Amino acid sequence: MQVDNRHFLICDPYMEKFEVNILGCGSALPTTRHFPTSQVLNVRDKLFMIDCGEGAQLQFRKSRLKFSRLNRIFISHLHGDHCFGLPGLVSTLNLLGRTAELHIHAPRGAEEIFAPVFSFFNRQMSYPVLFHEFDTKEAVQVYEDRSLTVTTLPLRHRMPCCGFLFAEKQGANHIVREQVDFYQVPVYELNRIKNGADYVTPEGQTIPNALLTVPPPPPRRYAYCSDTLYLPSLAEQVKGVDLLFHEATFAEADAARARETFHTTASQAARIASDAGVKRLLIGHFSARYEEAEILLHEAAAIFPNTTLASEMLCVPV
Amino acid sequence: MQVDNRHFLICDPYMEKFEVNILGCGSALPTTRHFPTSQVLNVRDKLFMIDCGEGAQLQFRKSRLKFSRLNRIFISHLHGDHCFGLPGLVSTLNLLGRTAELHIHAPRGAEEIFAPVFSFFNRQMSYPVLFHEFDTKEAVQVYEDRSLTVTTLPLRHRMPCCGFLFAEKQGANHIVREQVDFYQVPVYELNRIKNGADYVTPEGQTIPNALLTVPPPPPRRYAYCSDTLYLPSLAEQVKGVDLLFHEATFAEADAARARETFHTTASQAARIASDAGVKRLLIGHFSARYEEAEILLHEAAAIFPNTTLASEMLCVPV
Repeated sequence: MQVDNRHFLICDPYMEKFEVNILGCGSALPTTRHFPTSQVLNVRDKLFMIDCGEGAQLQFRKSRLKFSRLNRIFISHLHGDHCFGLPGLVSTLNLLGRTAELHIHAPRGAEEIFAPVFSFFNRQMSYPVLFHEFDTKEAVQVYEDRSLTVTTLPLRHRMPCCGFLFAEKQGANHIVREQVDFYQVPVYELNRIKNGADYVTPEGQTIPNALLTVPPPPPRRYAYCSDTLYLPSLAEQVKGVDLLFHEATFAEADAARARETFHTTASQAARIASDAGVKRLLIGHFSARYEEAEILLHEAAAIFPNTTLASEMLCVPV
Repeated sequence: MQVDNRHFLICDPYMEKFEVNILGCGSALPTTRHFPTSQVLNVRDKLFMIDCGEGAQLQFRKSRLKFSRLNRIFISHLHGDHCFGLPGLVSTLNLLGRTAELHIHAPRGAEEIFAPVFSFFNRQMSYPVLFHEFDTKEAVQVYEDRSLTVTTLPLRHRMPCCGFLFAEKQGANHIVREQVDFYQVPVYELNRIKNGADYVTPEGQTIPNALLTVPPPPPRRYAYCSDTLYLPSLAEQVKGVDLLFHEATFAEADAARARETFHTTASQAARIASDAGVKRLLIGHFSARYEEAEILLHEAAAIFPNTTLASEMLCVPV
């Protein structure tokens, strides 16, 4: 019996999963409304955690994401509200008997402060934790795989701090199933065709690639801009991204406080989004002083209408 | 004008506040139902934190307790689910501009692992954190003030671990307002009378103390028994306490697992409560494996009926 398994190669949905899960979007002081900062980027079911504030593992569990799918954590800076969840998460993965490497990308100094804590509280580790430290002063590519690159976005905060730009790579063409069925293209030809080749039938007829495929969707980009002073030059670095997360700690009435503490107001975040011509803006890292974050949404949307308020358990497609 | 301020000295309610607030009652693995272990004992509005699992500061805020009233933290052992909330809490108190000393009572080793973290993440501390380390092998008094003593309860776990016995001191007699009004006792006599003196009127008549006061309520005791192998000898140390918290990580079906991991089952916890003749049992530290903790309540109550399941935000008077 011959099995036609062509559909296994063909049935990828045109748009693969690329979405941001908000685990926490508060700032340093605890409130009854928010957890401190943590997000999980789901790229084709590979999970990338971005910052890991206290309680991140609890929110991770609540979000029904799978711990086993988490392989990399990116830390924007070494303030507690962005990384105090690490010891708990690392210990939990150990209790769960993880064996796969866990990679932590973080500014210099992270390993020195966290490695002793991990080893004190986990006498025997079932898996390796590997730190990859970087300098936050210049944009550097800190990760790359088949489908994605991650590059830092230098920011200005009270300590070395950066954001991260997650960029999909241009994918292969998508096969048009009806056409390859019609021309009875054999399975072993499909990869070549995905990569642009024409198909020549046994009778010698050339079927041009354009008849058999459609171009892939344009690659998507997510920019995560963590704690920073309002930095107009950032617009250039996040130009045209599909989704921009930007901190919006303060309302305009507290602009002086924002400057003093090296943070951004909601309308400044919206200004960056507008200058950069991004498709959508997501704001978070709300100061504990605002009972209702709607004032921040209101101020941002006045400048950049396509703005969304982050909230715990929100999932936003990029 | 003469102000009669006697009522300021008299109006203490007979039963002063002495209650346990549960901030978290799960165990190490995160669930959607529980936070890891932390409690706050409120003794006449002085707050004593007992263990400080990840997220304790978030739960503290949610419970509407006042950070400024917290002065002492007692850590039972150095497993992450009992102390990973410390860095966040210490940093938050710093952000809030605390100036009062914070005392952390913990097993040996706590300062060496936590002090570097506190100082890395708080470049300038607005208040001193003072560690008071103890050996968990023998019962030692680790704290005393005007109204309370705290003594360790040695336990058997996979690492040095103890519980804590919070014991009210015998208070002074309570003044009977109607009687001191009737005899027109001057304010300056009240303290002496509270401490047992009779009152002699200007006319030379002696009013016996028993007419002016009632005895104070009996001092109350709260025993907190953290992670431990079933330890029958513990009953002797917690004999007759008003409220016993005991870990009850497992159900009876998992008794073997309880033994292996140095934990207690719900019915073993109830056996201790029964042997010790305590007034009320509160169980917690539930394993993530039980979707419903009711099975643990059911098993414990079969042996010791006056059992309560801990749950987040529960407040239990001692």
